[in-house]
Order: sequence, then C-alpha cells, then structure tokens
Amino acid sequence: MTSTTMPMLGTYPQPINLDRTHLAAAIDALIACSQACTACADACLSEDTVAELTECIRTNLDCADICATTARVLSRHTGYDANISRALLEACATACRACGDECARHAEHHEHCRICTDACRACEQACRDLLASMS
Amino acid sequence: MTSTTMPMLGTYPQPINLDRTHLAAAIDALIACSQACTACADACLSEDTVAELTECIRTNLDCADICATTARVLSRHTGYDANISRALLEACATACRACGDECARHAEHHEHCRICTDACRACEQACRDLLASMS
Amino acid sequence: MTSTTMPMLGTYPQPINLDRTHLAAAIDALIACSQACTACADACLSEDTVAELTECIRTNLDCADICATTARVLSRHTGYDANISRALLEACATACRACGDECARHAEHHEHCRICTDACRACEQACRDLLASMS
Amino acid sequence: MTSTTMPMLGTYPQPINLDRTHLAAAIDALIACSQACTACADACLSEDTVAELTECIRTNLDCADICATTARVLSRHTGYDANISRALLEACATACRACGDECARHAEHHEHCRICTDACRACEQACRDLLASMS
Repeated sequence: MTSTTMPMLGTYPQPINLDRTHLAAAIDALIACSQACTACADACLSEDTVAELTECIRTNLDCADICATTARVLSRHTGYDANISRALLEACATACRACGDECARHAEHHEHCRICTDACRACEQACRDLLASMS
Repeated sequence: MTSTTMPMLGTYPQPINLDRTHLAAAIDALIACSQACTACADACLSEDTVAELTECIRTNLDCADICATTARVLSRHTGYDANISRALLEACATACRACGDECARHAEHHEHCRICTDACRACEQACRDLLASMS
Repeated sequence: MTSTTMPMLGTYPQPINLDRTHLAAAIDALIACSQACTACADACLSEDTVAELTECIRTNLDCADICATTARVLSRHTGYDANISRALLEACATACRACGDECARHAEHHEHCRICTDACRACEQACRDLLASMS
Repeated sequence: MTSTTMPMLGTYPQPINLDRTHLAAAIDALIACSQACTACADACLSEDTVAELTECIRTNLDCADICATTARVLSRHTGYDANISRALLEACATACRACGDECARHAEHHEHCRICTDACRACEQACRDLLASMS
C-alpha cells in the first residue's frame, strides 16, 4: 500500500504548524488502526465464542470511529486550532490504549486480536509522539 | 423529525451507567449539530465571499466529524468505558465551542452561520451537562 | 428533537435541484436510521443470545455507515452531481431493505429490533421517494 | 505505511466469498483515496483561488465519505450480502470517476489535485476490478 499522506502534506499551499514526520506517521497509523479495528470487530463477530468477545467488539467499534475522525481532523490544516487537535489526540490515545488492552486479552487465542493489539499500540504511540511534538 | 434515541435506550438489555435524560439529549444534540455543520460548510462554499469563510468551513468539517463520532460512541453501552466517553466529550465540547465562535463571526451576514452557531452552542452545553452528570 | 435540516436548506445561497420536502425528509430519516442501527447493533451485542444475532449486528453496522454517508452527501448542494446522489440512494435503499428484513426476524423477541425495523423501512421509503422525485 | 488489510483477511474465522487479492487491493485503495480527498479538499480551501475550486472541494468531500464507508463495508464478512457490496461499489466508482475528473481539471495548477486524481483513478479501477470478480 502506497500512502500519499506525506506527498499530500508537501502540496499544502500554506505553512503547517506541526512536525510533518510525526504528523504523517500519526495519520497513517490512525488509518491503519481504524481498518484493523473494523476488521477485528467483524472477525470477533464470526467466532464461535462471540459471547466472550462482546467488549472487544464494542471497543473495536469505538476505536475505529475515533481513529477515522482523528485522521480526518489531522489531514486538515486550514485555520488550524491546536486545542481541538490536542483534545482529540488525547481521546484517541485513550481509546487506542483501551482497545489494545482488550484485544491483548484475546491475542493468544485469536490472531486478529493479536494484529489489532499491535495496530492499537502503534497508533497510541504515534498519537502521543505527535502530542509531545506539539508542546 | 421523530427521534428514536430515548426509546432505543429503553430497550438496551443491561443497565446503563449514565443519566438517560442527559444521554439522550446529548446524542440528539450531537446528531443535529453534525448535520448543521455539514450543511453550513456547504452553504459557505457556495457564498460569493467563500474566500473569507475558509476557516469557518474547516471548523464546520471538524465539528461535523467529531460530533458524529461522539454520537456513535455514546449510543453504545456494552463494555462501557467512562475514560473514553469523558475524553471524547471534552474534545467534542472544544470543537463545538470553536465552531460556534467561528460561525458567530459570520452570523450577521449568513443565516446558515446563525443557525449553526445555535446548534453548536446547544451541543456544547449538552456535552458539558452530560460530563457534569458523570462525575 | 428539533431538526434544523429544512431551515438549513432555506439558507443555501444558490438554487437546489431537488424537491426540498423529499430531500429534508430523506436526510432526517437517514440520520434517525443511522442512530437506530448503531444502537440496535449495540443492544444485540448485549443480548444473551448474541450468537444468533451476528448477522443482524453486521447489517446494522453497514446500514449505520451507509445512511450516515448518504445523509452527508444529500446535505451538500454545491456542484450537485445527480449520478452520485442517485447511485448512493440506490445503495442506501438496498442496505435499509436488508437491515429492515434482518431486524424484522428478531422484532418479536427484541424491542430494539422492532424499533430499528421501523426506522429502516421509513428510511428506505424516504430514499425511494427522493429517487422517484429526481427522475 | 504497512497495511494489515491482507493479514487481517487471513485471520477471519469463516470463508470469505470474494477474491482476497482484489478485496484487499480495493480496501487499501479506498482508504488511500479517502485520505487523499480529505487532504485535497483542505488544500483547495487554502488556495488563493478557492472560489474556482468549490466544486472540487465538494466532490472531494463526497468521495472521501463514500470511500471511507465502502472500505468499512468491504472489511466486514459476517452475513455477507452481495447486493449491498455491489450497489455500494457502483456508487463508489461513480464518485471516484466524478472526483478524478474534477481534480484532473486542476491538476496542472495544483499538485494536490494531480495526486488526488491518481488516487481516484486507482480507486475507481480497484472498485471495478472487485465488481468484475464478483460476477
């Protein structure tokens, strides 16, 4: 998969008030995590043990939605408002942490939960790295 | 428009750890604000003075996305995680405040910005009321 | 819940190439259906019989996503492209039909499925009414 | 960017009724196109010539929403309904065609429109390839 996130940042016609390396890494991690969570929720739904995976499904759905929205907000630079980006990144890191923790509980039995744990951990870290670079 | 938000809360088969009146009010306000922001961004785009409204359009787009995601997260109760709801409500209130402030600057000249200001203010208040009821 | 969908249509600064009554009715039905489907998926997830409701959950998730996106596209009028609106309304009516049929199978046992069936049926009809008014 | 789309397909615990190579290619192209369209809309918004780019912005917003939703629906396999996938892929290909055509008009002057044209063309093709493999 060839990401155009970084090339698109290079075409924005005004200054961007964020570190581009951390920004592009965060956007790509958010997009990848959102897809992994959507797929993990659906895979959980088709497991024979679905009744034991309902919290995992719910957290996956939340994390997918929050990551997708955070990726969109970070992809916009016009009229940049650091307060919105910061608050949303905090919420997103919280969701990724919770989803990673929940998926980790099932990672031994379900490979989709193992892959999703990694995606959530990587995304949480990318959000925190971007947050750290903002202050 | 007949909202089924409150009736649906009544059918959830487990306890809900939030005040239902504040919860339903927040979900409905979030959904209404998301639609108003989407429509306001598009109306701004068709104004002759679009070049003066670019910050308004961007904030509208962010607010529409964040409100839509917050409404979804609040519509789920399985495996409830107060940390995620709280962080997302804070981010959403921040976005509604910023969007309401930006739309208010253009409310005198554009009726869509006036209506959208009201939707953002109402949504920010509904988010804060729900947050207050959680603590 | 007070919808601002119709008032916002009245503030759009250019002509709108669609019947406003059908358009506003469709947007409001889409938004209501999207919320009902999100809530129904989550309620199904918390039923003891979740293993029998996995198809219902999946169809609810699809229908929620498709209705939300269709509501956004219909809320935009700048550079209107009838081909996109028409194809998306067809896809959305298909999803609402499938989700309504699936929820109807469980409506006798689960009140959330009964309410969601009604929301899907109303939304499908609103999409088809708008489609009919376009030709 | 490392996509986990194909690895996640490999962990789904039931059969998948679609060609996995075309499916993963479509999901990845949809996600990439959605990000490119979101970024292009925002870059257009910050151009001095924004007044000439309003149709491009609107089509970008539609295409971003439709691609994101299509990626989600294709990421789910539980209770697969070919009618929904097919109708949504048709709508998505229509949106990608329209957005690619509109961006192509500005590609000579704006590099973000050139990159976005390519993303839309690739995504339209991936949708049509998947559709062709379904029949």
